[in-house]
Amino acid sequence: MDSSKYKMWLQYEICTVEQVNVQYQSLLRNVVIKGNDPIIFSAKDELQRAVKGMLDHELSWTENVQEANFVIGNINEVADFLKEEQRQLLTDLTEEGYIVQTSNQKTYIVGNTDKGVLYGVHHFIRLMQINSDLSQLQIVEQPKNQFRMINQWDNLDGTVERGYSGQSIFYQNGKIVKDKKRIRDYARYLSSVGINAISINNVNVWEEETYFITNKYLAEIKAIADIFSAYAIRLYLSINFASPMAIDGLSTADPLNKEVKQWWKEKVAEIYEYIPDFGGFVVKADSEHRPGPFTYNRDHADGANMLAEALEPYDGKVVWRCFVYNCLQDWRDRATDRARAAYDHFKPLDGRFHENVLLQIKNGPMDFQVREPVSPLLGAMPQTNQLVEFQVAQEYTGQQIDLCYLIPQWKQVLDFDTHIKGTGSTISEIVAGNIHAYKYSGIAAVSNIGDDENWTGHTLAQANLYGYGRLIWDPSLSSQEIAEEWISQTFGNQKEVVEKIGSMLLSSWTIYENYTAPLGVGWMVTPGIHYGPNIDGYEYSRWGTYHFADREGIGVDRTIETGTGYTDQYEEPNRSIYNILSECPDELLLFFHHVPYKYTLKNGETVIQHIYNTHFKGYEQVEDLMDSWNSLESLMDNDRFKNVQDRFRRQKINAKEWRDQINSYFYRKSGIADQYNRTIY
Amino acid sequence: MDSSKYKMWLQYEICTVEQVNVQYQSLLRNVVIKGNDPIIFSAKDELQRAVKGMLDHELSWTENVQEANFVIGNINEVADFLKEEQRQLLTDLTEEGYIVQTSNQKTYIVGNTDKGVLYGVHHFIRLMQINSDLSQLQIVEQPKNQFRMINQWDNLDGTVERGYSGQSIFYQNGKIVKDKKRIRDYARYLSSVGINAISINNVNVWEEETYFITNKYLAEIKAIADIFSAYAIRLYLSINFASPMAIDGLSTADPLNKEVKQWWKEKVAEIYEYIPDFGGFVVKADSEHRPGPFTYNRDHADGANMLAEALEPYDGKVVWRCFVYNCLQDWRDRATDRARAAYDHFKPLDGRFHENVLLQIKNGPMDFQVREPVSPLLGAMPQTNQLVEFQVAQEYTGQQIDLCYLIPQWKQVLDFDTHIKGTGSTISEIVAGNIHAYKYSGIAAVSNIGDDENWTGHTLAQANLYGYGRLIWDPSLSSQEIAEEWISQTFGNQKEVVEKIGSMLLSSWTIYENYTAPLGVGWMVTPGIHYGPNIDGYEYSRWGTYHFADREGIGVDRTIETGTGYTDQYEEPNRSIYNILSECPDELLLFFHHVPYKYTLKNGETVIQHIYNTHFKGYEQVEDLMDSWNSLESLMDNDRFKNVQDRFRRQKINAKEWRDQINSYFYRKSGIADQYNRTIY
Repeated sequence: MDSSKYKMWLQYEICTVEQVNVQYQSLLRNVVIKGNDPIIFSAKDELQRAVKGMLDHELSWTENVQEANFVIGNINEVADFLKEEQRQLLTDLTEEGYIVQTSNQKTYIVGNTDKGVLYGVHHFIRLMQINSDLSQLQIVEQPKNQFRMINQWDNLDGTVERGYSGQSIFYQNGKIVKDKKRIRDYARYLSSVGINAISINNVNVWEEETYFITNKYLAEIKAIADIFSAYAIRLYLSINFASPMAIDGLSTADPLNKEVKQWWKEKVAEIYEYIPDFGGFVVKADSEHRPGPFTYNRDHADGANMLAEALEPYDGKVVWRCFVYNCLQDWRDRATDRARAAYDHFKPLDGRFHENVLLQIKNGPMDFQVREPVSPLLGAMPQTNQLVEFQVAQEYTGQQIDLCYLIPQWKQVLDFDTHIKGTGSTISEIVAGNIHAYKYSGIAAVSNIGDDENWTGHTLAQANLYGYGRLIWDPSLSSQEIAEEWISQTFGNQKEVVEKIGSMLLSSWTIYENYTAPLGVGWMVTPGIHYGPNIDGYEYSRWGTYHFADREGIGVDRTIETGTGYTDQYEEPNRSIYNILSECPDELLLFFHHVPYKYTLKNGETVIQHIYNTHFKGYEQVEDLMDSWNSLESLMDNDRFKNVQDRFRRQKINAKEWRDQINSYFYRKSGIADQYNRTIY
Repeated sequence: MDSSKYKMWLQYEICTVEQVNVQYQSLLRNVVIKGNDPIIFSAKDELQRAVKGMLDHELSWTENVQEANFVIGNINEVADFLKEEQRQLLTDLTEEGYIVQTSNQKTYIVGNTDKGVLYGVHHFIRLMQINSDLSQLQIVEQPKNQFRMINQWDNLDGTVERGYSGQSIFYQNGKIVKDKKRIRDYARYLSSVGINAISINNVNVWEEETYFITNKYLAEIKAIADIFSAYAIRLYLSINFASPMAIDGLSTADPLNKEVKQWWKEKVAEIYEYIPDFGGFVVKADSEHRPGPFTYNRDHADGANMLAEALEPYDGKVVWRCFVYNCLQDWRDRATDRARAAYDHFKPLDGRFHENVLLQIKNGPMDFQVREPVSPLLGAMPQTNQLVEFQVAQEYTGQQIDLCYLIPQWKQVLDFDTHIKGTGSTISEIVAGNIHAYKYSGIAAVSNIGDDENWTGHTLAQANLYGYGRLIWDPSLSSQEIAEEWISQTFGNQKEVVEKIGSMLLSSWTIYENYTAPLGVGWMVTPGIHYGPNIDGYEYSRWGTYHFADREGIGVDRTIETGTGYTDQYEEPNRSIYNILSECPDELLLFFHHVPYKYTLKNGETVIQHIYNTHFKGYEQVEDLMDSWNSLESLMDNDRFKNVQDRFRRQKINAKEWRDQINSYFYRKSGIADQYNRTIY
């Protein structure tokens, strides 16, 4: 477990650029780090590792700040040694903020708290890894988002729901793992990109996992919580809403029932005895057959508030998921529209949630498709804390077999202007708490890691985990900046490597979209598995996921006048842009409108010809990706090279299936030939 | 385990027709049964049970034939008491033949062997169950087919491949069951309908089942063999072709390798030490990823003959399955036709197999679809013993949730005239060994039973197991005769019950066909599961199972001139009947031809209108079945009534899905409206 693939972006390879090495050696001559919190020890440990690896020397620590030429500590510890302007800079930052500055020939990493110190140290190390000039640092940083969360969908039996990287690193064969080294390393990676919260079990809480909040498991979960705590990451648990019944045989889980409320209060007290900095609960309720308040004719606010009351005394939070829809829909029923569900369920409840409740809302109205519009629920509840939910795991975007760098997709979501309080009401500003006065808000995402040696199955999928953390810390970073940072840290700073992999990553989402479901209609995947094409796979199913392709045309009419009225959930001008056929952007056309195959897109192609063109092109682009990767063989270790090469081999097979099935399906249905006479079967 | 549903067709309910009861009491006054073979004890036991149940009296057995008025025994035991003409009748029969005759006020059940005695006793009991007049019996019987076999697809872990009736009665949790009462009862049911061979493990032989032919399991398998032996049923085992490698680490399983041959000889000797009347091996080789001779550039004859040589000294047989096809086909490749595979593989090998090898050939060229033509391989190898293979388990015909009485389908197969040696070369005569001089031949079928209390999930699916045995004993029985026999024995002789259930059974295959895949094209089922509609489920897959529906038409062109040439595998006139569009029977049209939706069938409907009509009708017919069943509530026990009622509830849901998905799919594709304007979604 000391291989290059294991080490992800914290490689700490020897710095071979002499001039840089000399500068770093000199800067790190005499380092002091103040404080005794485990977080400080984590920062210290990380810096030691980095210096040992990159400069091949053991750091010489001093206790004396005066003597040191490199000062690390929180503002309280080192205030006396700071200039007034440095103190002022810090005062303007949140508790996670920090400065990394050169002043009087010394380097200072100072945080408002130890958390800031840890982030500052990671920042400094990152700069070392990309061989930056560190002689004149003037960094002032704080995260844009308050909540920066990861959700593990790990099960106690060791499986990971929608996991594409092996088994769980937390659980094996029905037990919490004994050896927690790997969990600690995971905490290092997460903290290096600023993650500050993690839920460690699947939102679908099964029978045995229900007992995580009992003394059967709490001692061991505390051990995990302590590991994450030392990296400034608070631990959350997904809970079973019916716990009072399952665990203690209560006759009800009605959130308004006195006994139930009391049960949760006592339960929460017990948890905090074990884990004083416990984060709170993540809840998937009344969704896809999970229990919830509906059983008792209560609503989501009743359910969430009952838990919130129990957690309030301890500063605990309730993260309540809004992935609620009718998963037993009749495909014959064209009026019910799954896309409407989250908004229809939750919008009317605005103002009813306690202030320590956060609603976690998937980025799109469906489910992590390669292309969807932004969920209209985001920002639509001014009085309710919100988190946007991304999925780092590539459930519908190639499952870490196909390359799909998701940062551009998430950026598009964050940059989307809802116009909810006028121009500039972007998702980014909403979840940062700058549009409505949210007490808590931010971003959560489903993890993509498992116990594969390289953590993510596809080595290049590490970029999604890295990028997720970096992006939500600072959404102003470009996809390219993030990609290049990651490549340099992961594969070194060779220009050819950085450029080629960079361009592969940046094109990969579009390529994946090219050969899969066209124009925003989504799905068309193998049911259950969600990998590979099955165009009608969900077409006659209960999941509410249709394309309605017939011999004349395709797409879902979600307009106000003739469709499901979904477009009405948006503010103007988005409402009209989506509702009016001629205004609707090409890439979402079939999400909002049912059109004939011969309908002409804004790009000048007909829908059918666009389908053919993108699918032939997508496959060719995968061939190009493969060639591009193969040209890098001599520039990296064989292990990672082969891993990615093998993934491209598999991606090519997948892309070919998608290309041919999609083309054949639509050719058979439309009867319209490809204008370039390419082979359609 | 003494419930009505458990007892299937051996209910032995008290005979309430006084006159009949009196007659039977009188006939069975003083019974002698001669012989000491376990088979004789089985016959005796069965007659005792029957008399105890139906007449509520304990049989009084005598040892003295002179004194007895009811004489049972094989011809050697009772020859002195028979008339010359009776002896003559028996001489003309096979070893399984028997007579049941009234002579000089006495009843005789005499078989050529003890097997015949057991069958004769069962015959007599059957007549009692249907309250026949038994005063003047003149029955002379023998089975039409030599091999009457059942294949269990049971796995050691307790699952049953394509099992729809619970878990295995042979295995639980990786072990052979200790309590073998249920196996013994199964032997009773099978022998009551004349089954004389059984293979007790899945043709897909997995890792641990490979060891069935070793001393790890042989003692327990011998115990099972003994149970079946006592019911005149020989036990077979499915084997792993690669056993020499798996079990003893040989470096090859090449059938021409000396060591491998020797290994099998020793292995067979070992088996026969445990089980002197062991039947032989069932082999699925080089099929669906199972190992076989192809690995060593040998053919099926090489593989089968190697095993045959080892078995020959013991009169053992090799049952070699012909379900061999390319299951990694590329759907883009329209030249490869799965339907051709068995014939293409095996026909050239005619004459090369040892005489103790039997080829087991599925009834159709695909895989137990609701409608297929008869396999052209049947009868096409004059010098090679053949078994036709049916599937009692309703894998593709409703899985014992939907009612589908399969006897009419099997009769159609048996009645099919191949014309291979002129008119009258029916499958029935071929597998009876009357067309070619087969040394061994007959019929095998995949079982439909499991450990559900009623054995078959759907109580009415018991009729398929019963009917299978009866039909292959005497293919001249009509589907109605078999149905009525079964109903009387199972539910009693009330006229309304016999008529209503009879008519339900007889219509059920057509009804199932009406609402599922149309006109012989097959498939359109959920992949893997094979229940419920998924019209394109196999359309872009590797299994070779396509319908090629596009906006103009549907069907597979298997003609000689423009298609795959499959029709050429038939003899005239079948070749032309299938090959010429205008000659092809409607029900197989889409199996042989690709036609426009507006093509007019012989029945006057267009293909598309026929699809709509049959699908609307099929669903209505299921409603009628349900009504018909509900009208029987007062005429039977609640337990079986509810079981079947619940199945119809589920069948209705399934039929509705099929109706609507098929209609919508073809309406969307063809754009042609239903001429009666019924609801299509």
